[in-house]
Amino acid sequence: MSDHGCIFCAMSRGDMEVDFLYLDQQLMVIRDINPRAPTHLLIIPRRHVKGLTYAAGRTSATLGQMFVIAEEMARREGVTVSGYRLILNQGPDSGQELEHVHMHLLAGRDMSGSI
Amino acid sequence: MSDHGCIFCAMSRGDMEVDFLYLDQQLMVIRDINPRAPTHLLIIPRRHVKGLTYAAGRTSATLGQMFVIAEEMARREGVTVSGYRLILNQGPDSGQELEHVHMHLLAGRDMSGSI
Repeated sequence: MSDHGCIFCAMSRGDMEVDFLYLDQQLMVIRDINPRAPTHLLIIPRRHVKGLTYAAGRTSATLGQMFVIAEEMARREGVTVSGYRLILNQGPDSGQELEHVHMHLLAGRDMSGSI
Repeated sequence: MSDHGCIFCAMSRGDMEVDFLYLDQQLMVIRDINPRAPTHLLIIPRRHVKGLTYAAGRTSATLGQMFVIAEEMARREGVTVSGYRLILNQGPDSGQELEHVHMHLLAGRDMSGSI
């Protein structure tokens, strides 16, 4: 359930020092080290999910929970009223950088002109 | 469970003629009428979910299922290898246009420089 070459798996196992903003049995939340917006968080399943090809069954419940935690994090960051964008990149055209499913939460700037 | 001012609810009820690419009891998929990429689909819960504030419980299972259907649609559109981006906009800063949760699937162009 953990991939030894994967940095997110190393974080989940406790092999690295990480400032988690949120952590439970299913999910962890960190700040993006290269933020593209005043608020830029990553919501990450703790279990290694390589991509959405593997999103059936129990994994889809975890992925749904990512939205619940996204809203909770938006509340903590004070951006529920101003709004936020959630992005999940999959494959080369999307700019996906790590092969372990993760959701970006971006907020604190006007993104309404772009998609 | 349906909002009478909402266009997605009208589609779900069958009040409008719509070319559904996919339809089941929980979700529907249509093409965006103003596409921002060669492939631009909308994955929409059929039940009126105003925003992620209401994402707990049964709704979160439906939201997780959106990822499963996203991957299925990517397969049908032939973009699983090239990749795709999923976006969920929430509130004014994100450019959300309709107050009924929906996920964008964008593919067919290089989005890797932007987020």
